[in-house]
Amino acid sequence: MFESAEVGRSVDKIEYAKRVSVLRTRLLKAQHALAGTSLRLVVIVGGVEGGGKTEVARRFLDWLDPRGLRVESYGDPSDEEDERPEYWRYWRTLPSSGRGAVLVGSWYTRPIVRRAFKQIGSGAFDQALDRAMAFEAMLIREKTVMVKLWLHLSKKGQKRRFKELESDRDTAWRVTKQDWEFSKKYDRFREVCERALTKTSVAEAPWTVIEATDRRYRDLAAGEAVLAAIEGALKRASAPAPKPASDRSKPPKVSVLSRLDLTKRLADDHAKKFEKQQTRVALLSRLLRDEGRSLICAFEGVDAAGKGGAIRRLLGAIDVRNARVMAVAAPTDEERAHPYLWRFWRNLPRLGHATIYDRTWYGRVLVERVEGFCAVEDWKRAYAEITAFEAELAEAGTIVCKFWLQISPEEQLRRFKDRVKTPFKQYKITEDDWRNRGKWDAYQAAAIDMIEKTSAPDAPWTLIEAEDKRWARLHVMKTVADRLEEELG
Amino acid sequence: MFESAEVGRSVDKIEYAKRVSVLRTRLLKAQHALAGTSLRLVVIVGGVEGGGKTEVARRFLDWLDPRGLRVESYGDPSDEEDERPEYWRYWRTLPSSGRGAVLVGSWYTRPIVRRAFKQIGSGAFDQALDRAMAFEAMLIREKTVMVKLWLHLSKKGQKRRFKELESDRDTAWRVTKQDWEFSKKYDRFREVCERALTKTSVAEAPWTVIEATDRRYRDLAAGEAVLAAIEGALKRASAPAPKPASDRSKPPKVSVLSRLDLTKRLADDHAKKFEKQQTRVALLSRLLRDEGRSLICAFEGVDAAGKGGAIRRLLGAIDVRNARVMAVAAPTDEERAHPYLWRFWRNLPRLGHATIYDRTWYGRVLVERVEGFCAVEDWKRAYAEITAFEAELAEAGTIVCKFWLQISPEEQLRRFKDRVKTPFKQYKITEDDWRNRGKWDAYQAAAIDMIEKTSAPDAPWTLIEAEDKRWARLHVMKTVADRLEEELG
Repeated sequence: MFESAEVGRSVDKIEYAKRVSVLRTRLLKAQHALAGTSLRLVVIVGGVEGGGKTEVARRFLDWLDPRGLRVESYGDPSDEEDERPEYWRYWRTLPSSGRGAVLVGSWYTRPIVRRAFKQIGSGAFDQALDRAMAFEAMLIREKTVMVKLWLHLSKKGQKRRFKELESDRDTAWRVTKQDWEFSKKYDRFREVCERALTKTSVAEAPWTVIEATDRRYRDLAAGEAVLAAIEGALKRASAPAPKPASDRSKPPKVSVLSRLDLTKRLADDHAKKFEKQQTRVALLSRLLRDEGRSLICAFEGVDAAGKGGAIRRLLGAIDVRNARVMAVAAPTDEERAHPYLWRFWRNLPRLGHATIYDRTWYGRVLVERVEGFCAVEDWKRAYAEITAFEAELAEAGTIVCKFWLQISPEEQLRRFKDRVKTPFKQYKITEDDWRNRGKWDAYQAAAIDMIEKTSAPDAPWTLIEAEDKRWARLHVMKTVADRLEEELG
Repeated sequence: MFESAEVGRSVDKIEYAKRVSVLRTRLLKAQHALAGTSLRLVVIVGGVEGGGKTEVARRFLDWLDPRGLRVESYGDPSDEEDERPEYWRYWRTLPSSGRGAVLVGSWYTRPIVRRAFKQIGSGAFDQALDRAMAFEAMLIREKTVMVKLWLHLSKKGQKRRFKELESDRDTAWRVTKQDWEFSKKYDRFREVCERALTKTSVAEAPWTVIEATDRRYRDLAAGEAVLAAIEGALKRASAPAPKPASDRSKPPKVSVLSRLDLTKRLADDHAKKFEKQQTRVALLSRLLRDEGRSLICAFEGVDAAGKGGAIRRLLGAIDVRNARVMAVAAPTDEERAHPYLWRFWRNLPRLGHATIYDRTWYGRVLVERVEGFCAVEDWKRAYAEITAFEAELAEAGTIVCKFWLQISPEEQLRRFKDRVKTPFKQYKITEDDWRNRGKWDAYQAAAIDMIEKTSAPDAPWTLIEAEDKRWARLHVMKTVADRLEEELG
């Protein structure tokens, strides 16, 4: 992979001046056009130490309008970053629509360094690369112009560069001990990087390997790669997107939902049973903070399935200072200017907290699918993205409980009527609720698909027979208690 | 102040049940009405240890819809919080319009504890209280329903409460060593708290002191105080706000701006001089990170005054990995749902960084004043709020440089015409620019007021003669270099 970046490419001053002048005008124009679209630009500048990653980033700030472009570099994670999944820091620095980011270092840095020093095996390394690719695939589907630049120097070239920097008083500080240490491991790094680049150079997000010996050649090549990517994306984006269609699938006759026994009722001694489970949750949830774990309880179900009531009971068992209820409603304009899952990532609490979601990220494969709020391919890819999201949560120490509350259409009607009648419940019922009711089958079909496609050992769905509210609340509470017991202490 | 909260108030079970039933319905209704307005709710629950702050917070989550209400408590600051001004953590947890927050502990906690243990003197204590009051005054002007509850127990009452909690296996954990330690200092705390409450109980944000011996009385009193506050605010908010008017002040004949000598030009040896200053900035700005300081350079000036060019040069001198350019444009909807300065607070970088603002928080007293985008009282109070904001930045280690770039109307016209003619500059000129030009005098008058009212020793304005771009860029660079030299190393 790197051989073709060791052939001695260079550009002389005159040619450079000529090409830069054209390049800058086109880059500015392209950036300005991008600012008016829903596209964002993400440029990864990776490469060997001494290749000039920071210099290239600076060049982009020179050539483009710095007000629409941000350079991000990732040092040691802060404690707030340490208390969230690994990718949180990348999510939180994603540019919004119309803007760009140049990343000096990226999600590749940590796996490469760890693999080079044999802190992880090749299996873990490949997993890390798979995660990077999945993240990038998501970004691209979410309208990101993704450019991956790799600045290469040969072993000799790197040494020469370090010595050259060290010989100048003004640049000597840029060569660190770590640089020399890494340089001693040049061959090992080369091998690991080659593996990384080969595996992750896919058609939709290829690496551009740039020979970095000659600075003029390097900068021009970097700039031209970015220009080509933006111009290409703008051309593709000008084609009108097809209008998303609503989904009217029918649920299968027999399914995980049809098999639920909605006649389940709680006997009269329910209060005692409930209290017992509530106390278990209260005692166990106190351990979250000490053990550096988090809890997420996610609730889905048709309107009036009893999510609110179950949530209130659960909340009642958890220390309010570490608990939060998140109601998922329409996204804000900032959220709309980012990939779908961004609005959940941005609100992820630190370790020690419990978060209860009244509706969740599954909105993508439920309401958005049924109502046609997003394209078919968007909700279809969401299953994998959500599964990956929850796996990252679990890996970072979050206990994920997901509940589907199931009621019959007849029970829903009874509850709607009750809401209409009861003054302090009236605000809970809207026209949307009646409208959604008309699409009962489509919502059931979507729920069945969701449950089947997104159950995972560390983020399982619990299906709750919710025709009897007390039965539902007890079983939600017991499930949470059991999960906490299993995971803590 | 506390005597009237030691008279033995209590509520029996029957009365409690009756009053709670009415209270809950009205609270829910009020919260629902609030959700449809631009008002937000902030409830501080303060008070002595053992008074039941957390229990009261829980009660609010029970009685109100927890999806619109969040409990915040403030433990030790995280490292990210430590690297920003003290109030950053309060700004970042402010609820948006239509939502509410119950704060268990608040901006009062730290000053009170520090004063009680004599870590600060009475002067510093009063300053901290002044800051709290200024913050609350701002919140209230920015449509916050502010409720300040203080749960009081007598000395004996507190001891009794601790013993009662300790005697029950389920609640014993809630009494900590610190509680007993604080309890030994009861009299000292009482004195300090009395001072705090007396000083900060102002008409617009009074403290409600609640006798916390009887839990039923306490919870009812807390709930009723919140209800009264929301209902009162809703009533006031229903009066239509007067339409803000644009401002057409004339600048005085002689002013800080008229006294500038716009004929200043740079001699031909400018390149060398400029390079010298740029190198100074490059070397000095590297110290920011080591010394745990930040740099903010804020640029204001009429359209085409040369802000962009000066910013590019300055950016060229700073390590791109620690530098960022922020262009201030129209607020997003999330920003609109928060107090004016929130959008600047939310983006404050950690220590070690340099941020260059192309237009700033001064938009409030420039464009918003002139164009009538906000009410007169809003931009009038902004001077004090901005001065306080910059003082907090300086206190937290930020070096604040503010530049006003001054050109003549004739020079502006020349530059506009040049932009129209030059292909790659055309995107820089819009209809707004021509329109604003027609209001030259009003903008000058606003700028003069701004400069006079917001110059402070640790956040001074530097007025730059910008008729000659090279002169302007050199003097910006030199000013930054001088400030860095003064503050660092």
